[in-house]
Amino acid sequence: MTASLSGFPELLPSQRFVELAVLDRLRATFELHGFAPLETRAAEPLQTLLRKGDIDKEVYVLRRLHADPTEEVAEDAGLGLHYDLTVPFARYVLANAGRLEFPFRRYQIQKVWRGERPQEGRYREFTQADIDIVARGELPFHHDVEVARVMAEALAALGFLPPLRLQVNNRKLIEGFYRGLGADDPAAVMRAVDKLDKAPSELVRKLLVSEAGLSDEQADLCLRLADIRSAGTSFADQVRALGISHPLLEAGLQELEAVITGCLDVSGAQVTVEADLRIARGLDYYTGTVFETRMSGHESLGSICSGGRYDSLASDGRTTYPGVGISLGLTRLLMPLFQRGVLDGSRAVPSAVLVALPSDDDRARCDAIAQQLRARGIATEVAAAPQKYGKQIRHAERRGIPFVWFPNDQGSDEVKDIRSGDQLPAHADSWTPPAEDLRPHVLARFDEDDTE
Amino acid sequence: MTASLSGFPELLPSQRFVELAVLDRLRATFELHGFAPLETRAAEPLQTLLRKGDIDKEVYVLRRLHADPTEEVAEDAGLGLHYDLTVPFARYVLANAGRLEFPFRRYQIQKVWRGERPQEGRYREFTQADIDIVARGELPFHHDVEVARVMAEALAALGFLPPLRLQVNNRKLIEGFYRGLGADDPAAVMRAVDKLDKAPSELVRKLLVSEAGLSDEQADLCLRLADIRSAGTSFADQVRALGISHPLLEAGLQELEAVITGCLDVSGAQVTVEADLRIARGLDYYTGTVFETRMSGHESLGSICSGGRYDSLASDGRTTYPGVGISLGLTRLLMPLFQRGVLDGSRAVPSAVLVALPSDDDRARCDAIAQQLRARGIATEVAAAPQKYGKQIRHAERRGIPFVWFPNDQGSDEVKDIRSGDQLPAHADSWTPPAEDLRPHVLARFDEDDTE
Repeated sequence: MTASLSGFPELLPSQRFVELAVLDRLRATFELHGFAPLETRAAEPLQTLLRKGDIDKEVYVLRRLHADPTEEVAEDAGLGLHYDLTVPFARYVLANAGRLEFPFRRYQIQKVWRGERPQEGRYREFTQADIDIVARGELPFHHDVEVARVMAEALAALGFLPPLRLQVNNRKLIEGFYRGLGADDPAAVMRAVDKLDKAPSELVRKLLVSEAGLSDEQADLCLRLADIRSAGTSFADQVRALGISHPLLEAGLQELEAVITGCLDVSGAQVTVEADLRIARGLDYYTGTVFETRMSGHESLGSICSGGRYDSLASDGRTTYPGVGISLGLTRLLMPLFQRGVLDGSRAVPSAVLVALPSDDDRARCDAIAQQLRARGIATEVAAAPQKYGKQIRHAERRGIPFVWFPNDQGSDEVKDIRSGDQLPAHADSWTPPAEDLRPHVLARFDEDDTE
Repeated sequence: MTASLSGFPELLPSQRFVELAVLDRLRATFELHGFAPLETRAAEPLQTLLRKGDIDKEVYVLRRLHADPTEEVAEDAGLGLHYDLTVPFARYVLANAGRLEFPFRRYQIQKVWRGERPQEGRYREFTQADIDIVARGELPFHHDVEVARVMAEALAALGFLPPLRLQVNNRKLIEGFYRGLGADDPAAVMRAVDKLDKAPSELVRKLLVSEAGLSDEQADLCLRLADIRSAGTSFADQVRALGISHPLLEAGLQELEAVITGCLDVSGAQVTVEADLRIARGLDYYTGTVFETRMSGHESLGSICSGGRYDSLASDGRTTYPGVGISLGLTRLLMPLFQRGVLDGSRAVPSAVLVALPSDDDRARCDAIAQQLRARGIATEVAAAPQKYGKQIRHAERRGIPFVWFPNDQGSDEVKDIRSGDQLPAHADSWTPPAEDLRPHVLARFDEDDTE
């Protein structure tokens, strides 16, 4: 029996409380902004999954264990597990277009699977939380601002993460710049610039010359463009100072200024929304705004929240559905923090109270006390066996249950805070624990020493 | 692009609101009783999945699309998707025994996959909600009562289902009865009796004679036992009146009486907990209490919530972990009700308010109004385009958004209830919709005509 499976992370219950708290807060923010909940099936036909082409190696294919070969062809041929939530969402939109109202806002929080080689920040099974807005025909640009604002607000509302930088760029801006300086193959330039994340700039400079056919001067301009970043809109003057002009560049500058300006009031200590002209997302099919997000002190995780605009998220040949969205890698965000011991839940059980059991004959009475507490929203369990009270208290202690209830005769019950040792008379129909003890909460400890 | 895939159901957003409401209520009840949240990975080694033997045909095996044959052996050999949550839970308990406190209560709500031929009530991808209590060494019997009570309370708390019958039996009772009347192969008797659900009793009688080697008199007694059911504990006298005696029968009668007695106060109009001596769960490895649940008017769905006690849920050779649990088939419960049109969410979006947009120049002002409403927990969206107000109202209407907000000059905003047509002055920092309009709610309509 295998204890663990590389790339398939599992949480302990106290960690799962943290994940649930995160999911609840994301869902609350997304719904406040009118995003509807959606789930799609885990399996898609391979022909749907492989349309994008370049990550086909990562798909897990499904096969029934004892499938009859003829039946296999008819029913199961070419089913695979989804590797993201964008491709299934595009398929869902086309399949249900007649039953959806556009623009359609949805959030989707689900597991996805990729047969990648596991490493830190890379998993074979992981959870993504996506928001997208999709229209039929035309999608106004202000929705690019909207998804950035909503995700920044959602991340800030989590309240316990190290500071995050939501970095925004625009494909029109960089493609227009490359065209404006005379590059013949802007896509090759983008692929080279995209390597700045992992490779030294001198190597990227060589690739720009050897792979993208640029001169040294052109390569230098591309690297200077990629170095530009600003929390406000000063990036635009810095780009214009490079002396390149092209209509697409100008359109991109205006869009990026609109996103940065539109997010100024959501930028804060927790999340800043910045222009960062290095962001290219070279392997994805974005056509305008692009997003990445980095966590201070944990930059080696890469981007934990990425996305952008697709002018054609989906198309059935007659109608095109443009979309803009952003996807939070929840597992990539949380697992390294769990593993480094800087994030955990305050206890391993929901219970705020353990009702001590004096003897087996008292079980019905203890159950009744527990039901009175539960009826008022206080998670309660009754001790499994009538051990000595010292043992029952240690049992509560090991689980992190803060209160032990002692049933006494004639309604003179008492409740003990096992952390302070304080023990006071209490009635099951009125006693309430302090609000912070009612449910497990998130314990986060991000010191300087815990960062890289 | 495939619109639908047989056996892989998908919901519309309004239906997903219902599912989320169900999940929230289940989670709240389970946590009030001290059950900790848990998820396990979707994939398990085939050797883990196939230990039970008889449903191996239903497993979906995973393979990386372009797996290198040598690597396949090393890393991915024999991974399959889990087909229930019990087998992965047993594996998790063994793998994490040193980090868990026993008895360990957990709830687990996840998708599972089976390569079965799809039909009503049978899916290839579906969601289960399980609660289990597992101990190291010994698990006191009162936990059998506890899981029945908790699931009955959870089902009743959903509040909108047709009446449910949680049917309880005990394997010791029926095995002891079969042994007491002289059956040589009690397992064969159980397998035959298990068919009473689908086959006429005359056919079962023949099977009891031909397959289980019983005499006509013995077969008759088995059928009379299977006919016994009672809401209280009168079943015990009816069994004893059949004149069979065996120590195992007596032990089973006492356990079943304890479960029924212990659940009397949770039985109500929504859920009744009954003894039903037909329940055998012949294909599962239960050793005492067994549960099934049927929904009035929807009996053809079969059991929507089943479980029981395993004296050996897991074992590592040295230590045995007994468990008792019960598993709710959420998809089997909800999908037929969605398909019959008797269950839906009240709207397709979370938004309670659409802020109308007078002109594109008003977007910032409308966004600010929306943020004021959201800050007080009111889900709000701003109209996508400055169309004529009539069009914007129809847009809200099609999504089921109950209120449209009209921003006017000098703080004289108005809000319209588009159902009644009432339009009143309102301030974004104080107006609140009626509580029932704040979030989408569950619409259930179970008339006589909708049942079978």
